[in-house]
Amino acid sequence: DEKPVDTSDLFAHEPERHPAFKINSAKPFNAEPPPLLLIDKFLTPNALFFIRNHLPLPKIENVDTFEVEIRGVGIERPISLKLQDLQKRFKQHTITSTVQCAGNRRSHMRQFREVKGLNWETSAISNAEWTGVKLADVLAYADAKEDKVGHVLFQGLDTDHDGSPYEASIPAETAFDPRRDVMLVYKMNGEEIPIDHGYPLRVIVPGTVGARQVKWVNKIILSEIESQSHWQQNDYKAFNSSTDWHNVDFSKAEPIQEYPLQSAICEPKDGITYKPGETMTLKGYAWSGGGRGILRVDVSTDGGKTWHTARLNQIQQPRNRTWAWTLWEVALPAPNEKGEITLICKATDTSHNAQPENAEGIWNLRGLIHNAWHNVKVTVE
Amino acid sequence: DEKPVDTSDLFAHEPERHPAFKINSAKPFNAEPPPLLLIDKFLTPNALFFIRNHLPLPKIENVDTFEVEIRGVGIERPISLKLQDLQKRFKQHTITSTVQCAGNRRSHMRQFREVKGLNWETSAISNAEWTGVKLADVLAYADAKEDKVGHVLFQGLDTDHDGSPYEASIPAETAFDPRRDVMLVYKMNGEEIPIDHGYPLRVIVPGTVGARQVKWVNKIILSEIESQSHWQQNDYKAFNSSTDWHNVDFSKAEPIQEYPLQSAICEPKDGITYKPGETMTLKGYAWSGGGRGILRVDVSTDGGKTWHTARLNQIQQPRNRTWAWTLWEVALPAPNEKGEITLICKATDTSHNAQPENAEGIWNLRGLIHNAWHNVKVTVE
Ligand SMILES: [Mo]
Ligand SMILES: [Mo]
Repeated sequence: DEKPVDTSDLFAHEPERHPAFKINSAKPFNAEPPPLLLIDKFLTPNALFFIRNHLPLPKIENVDTFEVEIRGVGIERPISLKLQDLQKRFKQHTITSTVQCAGNRRSHMRQFREVKGLNWETSAISNAEWTGVKLADVLAYADAKEDKVGHVLFQGLDTDHDGSPYEASIPAETAFDPRRDVMLVYKMNGEEIPIDHGYPLRVIVPGTVGARQVKWVNKIILSEIESQSHWQQNDYKAFNSSTDWHNVDFSKAEPIQEYPLQSAICEPKDGITYKPGETMTLKGYAWSGGGRGILRVDVSTDGGKTWHTARLNQIQQPRNRTWAWTLWEVALPAPNEKGEITLICKATDTSHNAQPENAEGIWNLRGLIHNAWHNVKVTVE
Repeated sequence: DEKPVDTSDLFAHEPERHPAFKINSAKPFNAEPPPLLLIDKFLTPNALFFIRNHLPLPKIENVDTFEVEIRGVGIERPISLKLQDLQKRFKQHTITSTVQCAGNRRSHMRQFREVKGLNWETSAISNAEWTGVKLADVLAYADAKEDKVGHVLFQGLDTDHDGSPYEASIPAETAFDPRRDVMLVYKMNGEEIPIDHGYPLRVIVPGTVGARQVKWVNKIILSEIESQSHWQQNDYKAFNSSTDWHNVDFSKAEPIQEYPLQSAICEPKDGITYKPGETMTLKGYAWSGGGRGILRVDVSTDGGKTWHTARLNQIQQPRNRTWAWTLWEVALPAPNEKGEITLICKATDTSHNAQPENAEGIWNLRGLIHNAWHNVKVTVE
């Protein structure tokens, strides 16, 4: 590029991103892929994986000197591990796990009533194969005592204007449980992790909101209490729909960890036109947190009067550890009567959770975890 | 009693039950306690614990000769254990775990559209402290190999007319996971288990529907496939709301295992009258399957326009292993305008699942796992 670089710009070193992204914030960079590209492949290509940065990207000068430190309560002697140590000392695992931003589908909650936050549509979610080591193995190697630990804190190399790093925490019971598959990963879809997704090391906490899956992680701190960071204490919390900015008390709610059941229609888009009787092909995704799988996706073309069960595209994962999303597809005839029709999708997970019909009961002032039935309006003419 | 006993009656040996029960079926016996008694204590007294029998009670002649057999794929040599063996050889654990029938609140689903099944109101749920041993420990003692096993089958001593026993199964991943706390229990609330609840030994599968928590268990069979029993294959399955008795194919759905989020108002009852401005005390329970805890219970007295957060009564259980219910209570003024008002409760669990607003999206032909917002209508006059 011939353009002069503004060296005062904290974001000047950031890479070019995929031109197809819908950008919800340029600095820090937050963007989602177009819905059709999102579900084109079961594993989202790295270049199309949604990007949610809270701060400027860190500069990774020399990966050979990169270390992750593990210390805190329940650990007598802190340890520091280079990437090569992680790769040499621990069994390598690869899991497919979907990451979803707590703000996914905020734009739909906003239609119900105004909320604060980036205007994510349906694509603040993506699915990848992650390769690395299990945090439970690393904690065992550090001789960490679970019974002393309440929460495991993760710090990233990204820092805000006063130099304090991004930080979030998860419950110790999740971090120490080998069946929860919490991982420190150094590969994404078999490739080096792109800088936007945490190069050289990030945390994957399957089934949990993206905000806890800290990127560029270089400190893991075992603690009696949870992270006191802004992102843990004063954001990523949900309140009831009668709580507004005048009466909210962030100390009264728990930080969001596990995600509930979610689904969305990615094809067709709002406003598409069909001929009477023409075949409409509906496609989308469904996912549930906490390792729950998807049992069923039901689709309606008459506003919810009758329901059709979609064909599911799933991979085999162990029960209680279904970390990957489900893609779904169903072909249905457009009605013979002309006019606008509402297409709806909703899913059922292995715990028989249902999605709420609309935002009425789940609206919250930050517009988080909106998982109501997804509607798309199309026209038959 | 002076009454002659009909010896041809398969139910003649059954005990007297608590007179307060609402009986939904006399033979086999199925009954629920009155809502106010249900939530009077955090641990439901044994005599008031809801009873759901599929078959006549078995006759337990001599508990000293009672044995449970463990055999099947992944076990080279079957073992049989007497009660004393269980108590001597394994670490004893006590957990508080709520049991809920998959048919709880069927009566409310029936109001939406007719379903088949016993007419349970809101009390086909109860909470007790269970003492026994972990199934994971017993399976380790039997040297069972998890990777060979798909499902763990439980058979009870209760048999149907052709002599075949009640049987159900759970996924191997749940049975073998020590953090899922599947137990073989011989005490209920510190006492001998009543015959109605499985004396001398029953299975507790925390977070899962009652139908899999087999009572009077005497055979545990490790299998590649799940139980082929009626109760596993042709009952306790849910379908979408467009599936009726003409098009249902029971082979197309998975048996219900984990329960979703549930809550109900136990006080006041429908039809109660308040004076304008009088304090209304609302009480009830909330519970979620899969070890998820309850984050919040919200109550509305204006049909859902404004929501009030209830005070929660909970015990401390480890994260991801919240097996006990939450009792809740909130005092709110009756409105000043006279007329009928609708009280509503709904809960949020630690995975941020929401309950559906009504039965529209979850109606199923057997009326199973109805967990829509619970409404009670009262009058201000
Ligand atoms: Mo996020
Ligand atoms: Mo049941």
